[in-house]
Amino acid sequence: MNNDHLTLYVSAFVDELTKVGITDVVVSPGSRSTPFAIVMAEHPDIKVHMNIDERSAAFFALGMAKAKRKPVALLCTSGTAVANYFPAVVEAYYARVPLIVLTADRPHELRDVGAPQAIDQFNIYGKHAKWFVEMALPEGSKEMLRYARTMAARAAAIAMTAPAGPVHLNFPLREPLVPNVTEQTWTQIERKEPSYIQVSIGKRTLEREQFQFIYERLAGIEKGLIICGEIDKPHFAEAVVKLAETLNYPILADPLSHLRSGAHSKEYIVESYDAILKNETAMRTLMPEVIIRFGAMPVSKPLTLMLKNNTAIEQIVVDGDGGWREPTLNASYMIHCDETDFCNQLVELAQPKKKQSDWAKLWQDVNKMAKTALLEAGKDEEMFEGKVFIELAQLLPEKSILFVGNSMPIRDADTFFMATDKNIRIMANRGANGIDGVVSSALGASVTGDPLVLVIGDLSFYHDLNGLLAAKLHKLNATIIVINNNGGGIFSFLPQAKQERHFELLFGTPTNLQFEHIVRMYDGNYTKADTWSQFRKSVASSFSAAGLHVIEVCTLRQENVKKHRRLWENVSLEISEFLEKGRKA
Amino acid sequence: MNNDHLTLYVSAFVDELTKVGITDVVVSPGSRSTPFAIVMAEHPDIKVHMNIDERSAAFFALGMAKAKRKPVALLCTSGTAVANYFPAVVEAYYARVPLIVLTADRPHELRDVGAPQAIDQFNIYGKHAKWFVEMALPEGSKEMLRYARTMAARAAAIAMTAPAGPVHLNFPLREPLVPNVTEQTWTQIERKEPSYIQVSIGKRTLEREQFQFIYERLAGIEKGLIICGEIDKPHFAEAVVKLAETLNYPILADPLSHLRSGAHSKEYIVESYDAILKNETAMRTLMPEVIIRFGAMPVSKPLTLMLKNNTAIEQIVVDGDGGWREPTLNASYMIHCDETDFCNQLVELAQPKKKQSDWAKLWQDVNKMAKTALLEAGKDEEMFEGKVFIELAQLLPEKSILFVGNSMPIRDADTFFMATDKNIRIMANRGANGIDGVVSSALGASVTGDPLVLVIGDLSFYHDLNGLLAAKLHKLNATIIVINNNGGGIFSFLPQAKQERHFELLFGTPTNLQFEHIVRMYDGNYTKADTWSQFRKSVASSFSAAGLHVIEVCTLRQENVKKHRRLWENVSLEISEFLEKGRKA
Repeated sequence: MNNDHLTLYVSAFVDELTKVGITDVVVSPGSRSTPFAIVMAEHPDIKVHMNIDERSAAFFALGMAKAKRKPVALLCTSGTAVANYFPAVVEAYYARVPLIVLTADRPHELRDVGAPQAIDQFNIYGKHAKWFVEMALPEGSKEMLRYARTMAARAAAIAMTAPAGPVHLNFPLREPLVPNVTEQTWTQIERKEPSYIQVSIGKRTLEREQFQFIYERLAGIEKGLIICGEIDKPHFAEAVVKLAETLNYPILADPLSHLRSGAHSKEYIVESYDAILKNETAMRTLMPEVIIRFGAMPVSKPLTLMLKNNTAIEQIVVDGDGGWREPTLNASYMIHCDETDFCNQLVELAQPKKKQSDWAKLWQDVNKMAKTALLEAGKDEEMFEGKVFIELAQLLPEKSILFVGNSMPIRDADTFFMATDKNIRIMANRGANGIDGVVSSALGASVTGDPLVLVIGDLSFYHDLNGLLAAKLHKLNATIIVINNNGGGIFSFLPQAKQERHFELLFGTPTNLQFEHIVRMYDGNYTKADTWSQFRKSVASSFSAAGLHVIEVCTLRQENVKKHRRLWENVSLEISEFLEKGRKA
Repeated sequence: MNNDHLTLYVSAFVDELTKVGITDVVVSPGSRSTPFAIVMAEHPDIKVHMNIDERSAAFFALGMAKAKRKPVALLCTSGTAVANYFPAVVEAYYARVPLIVLTADRPHELRDVGAPQAIDQFNIYGKHAKWFVEMALPEGSKEMLRYARTMAARAAAIAMTAPAGPVHLNFPLREPLVPNVTEQTWTQIERKEPSYIQVSIGKRTLEREQFQFIYERLAGIEKGLIICGEIDKPHFAEAVVKLAETLNYPILADPLSHLRSGAHSKEYIVESYDAILKNETAMRTLMPEVIIRFGAMPVSKPLTLMLKNNTAIEQIVVDGDGGWREPTLNASYMIHCDETDFCNQLVELAQPKKKQSDWAKLWQDVNKMAKTALLEAGKDEEMFEGKVFIELAQLLPEKSILFVGNSMPIRDADTFFMATDKNIRIMANRGANGIDGVVSSALGASVTGDPLVLVIGDLSFYHDLNGLLAAKLHKLNATIIVINNNGGGIFSFLPQAKQERHFELLFGTPTNLQFEHIVRMYDGNYTKADTWSQFRKSVASSFSAAGLHVIEVCTLRQENVKKHRRLWENVSLEISEFLEKGRKA
């Protein structure tokens, strides 16, 4: 049977993907997806990343797309393979990461009739895919090759359009499935430079009068704060720092704001607001009148409570992607405008700068004090979880990626990773905050070639052990620091901790796993760091040797809570004293 | 804050689950699901199975529900945890396995506003859940406790109603989340015996005239076949065997038909139709005029092709669950009637039996010949994949479970596992035929306490390595035979095998994993069986020692294809000769 129509249709689609800048495809093995897999392997501009477990494959693609700041494609066969992508698709949707999910499907006559590996793939990700297309059966006519090209270009454009996210194209395919790709194929499908249809995507911005209106609301207010959650937009860091300097507003910077590291000025950057706002006097004294918030909601719970419980604060939420990230129900202004633009426009309107005030100084002083108290933990010899981040701030090389696991690590990064001028990119999966897929996401980010360190808890590490296969098969370089407190450390901080009768069964969930075994299975280097000097040595040497390095730091859940609480208490005591003094003076 | 309304509401719901027979809940750790987790742990009639990776957890529940033939509940927290259930929910839907999926969710005010771990859980499994309910927020009024009870009873009833399948109840829950369960709680929620509302579920059956009509179509036809795919219904085996004897029709029995093993007569059971129908002369000579088909589509491709390519065959498809498992587009009658009933009614109408004919004898002779030729493989000393099933037919003890992985193992079971009077239950995940979740499904089935052997390929084993944690934590007894041909063995049988340039990258996908490491991590016993005597010894001893036993059989993909093809050729030659002789005689 002549298979030219299949070859041409699939080749046109894949070729157009490369024209719009897609270079990486994460492929999982399967039969129905054969035409795409072979055409992709044959295409000179595509790199195929084979990844057998589709759940890990999709998170690997997610991490890569996030780190490379461009869409990555996924390819799998029909059936539950498609369902295994779901957790990463959900994360990509909420984290606004562009993914192009390509799934092979049985043709119409084999659907819903008990044929093997046939499931209902139509709109299978529901609202979590930005766009779903049931593609036409392969045809080789000129028109249908133009259709294939257009859909490829459109898929990439929709994935990148704000808010970026996953798109899903489902391809019904009939046997025979093996395409017949030759040198001629590439000329037959009429390649054009640069792409078949070029899509220009505009940014959201406001009118001059709207900026003027907002500026006027801020002009007279001394007590303002800028809050930045996860945000990764070009030139935003410089722009928001300038805005802070202009308005004389401190910036409460989440570890994922890309503001705690890099070359910009750190004068207005406040890192320790989480510890500070646990103190009630501080919460009262440092209460702002206005807040400008960028990016996702920060990880800090005291900060969220401040926003939620104080209706008097005027909250301006800026989201260039046009979303609605506002769980406090207290925002007064929702501004759908490119964040960098917003900052630049306000800075322009505010010239000359507002004059200095005691407000920013007060925040800066308290922050300094809190930082110093927290960094005391760095001097202790005990294997305290928070100290990992204090150490890493020193150990990480220039232009490296620090990938942070959910649950405790991201909270410890928030508390203990202080601002640095080094160029360290902090990443995490904060779309849905899952402990799943984190190993794969980090390894996907390692494809950039930048030194990569992942800090992850033992349960989250266990959840995605399968992700380690990619490191072995593709010889990736990565340092994984497993903080092993033998179970779910975060629950010890929650009210559930008092449920002694069922705590270990339902929340503590110790696994008693010796990870050394599995690290060996995946050809990794394993070290257990019992002291900080071992830790430092292991981390440093992991950067100079290729391959996968897993460094395990074992801690005790009970001790960990106590130490955290002790440090927070110290911060609180010092702040109370300081503020008390200030009040009396 | 008083939390009585939460405690009562959740306790009423959980209590009613136990009243309708739910005894097992597979729980994954989380905070939002706390009220359910604690109430379940407190309930005297519920067994909590903790399983940390939700993907494995759901497959574990699936295997248990299938093996126990009753619904099992699942509980997880909000966020991607819910998405991780998806592959098993899909499998449960197509395999018709009753699951009650309970997911905790953020309350309405925290949805779609960027709150942590909040995703769109509304109808998240799409068509793959039979029923979705967004539950009311917990309230403690009498009416709402009756509502909670009714919904629990209804959920279980819907999950069990034919076709059985997964139902999904989503619970919005507000903080504080820790319930206050005391001895009094169980009296406060007014327990009744047996259940709050008793649901009686009727079976589908036909009118007497409809049975009469069908019987008349069969009465005059000598050349008939009964085909049984996966089916697991009470008393069906005896009933269908009686029907075969009455009509004098052979039964082509898929390994999952529950007909190849057990106490019933095996006289009419044909196992080797897959090998037989690869021979064109056999396909012509043994072509039936009518077929009665029960259960899912069998795994055999030659059989499917026979059904698909011969429009002259009158096909009667019987599905007591009212589904449409008919991918051949050739069926003449779709009968939605309880299968056991159907057999019994026809047998009654057909008294006295049809007289013996050469037709059944011919099939029986050819089957005997094919079996003998295939079982020759049992005499070879080489480590051939198919021989695993020849050996297991001998080694498996009475009342044991043989769980079979997808891809090659189920096909080898089809070809090499011949009928036995032993009570061996053969199980597999054939809803969507995925290689995912198989370890967990098998371990879930082991909860029955029957000796369990899983035969699985290396890729499928890798895919669900996380499933092994359940064996370690819950001290399950299981024997896992990993057939390790270092990659995807099935592709060597497909046209893709000729794509030498990309074959290993895209289809062969060797991982070179040494599974011994990971088996040790999960406290299992590991043996590599290099000879059949080692294999026999290891399997036998695994039954007498508690815990997890992994026995690895290493094979070569190329050799495996060759050996299969040689055996099929032998069968074909012998059959051709025999049929040729018969034609001349």
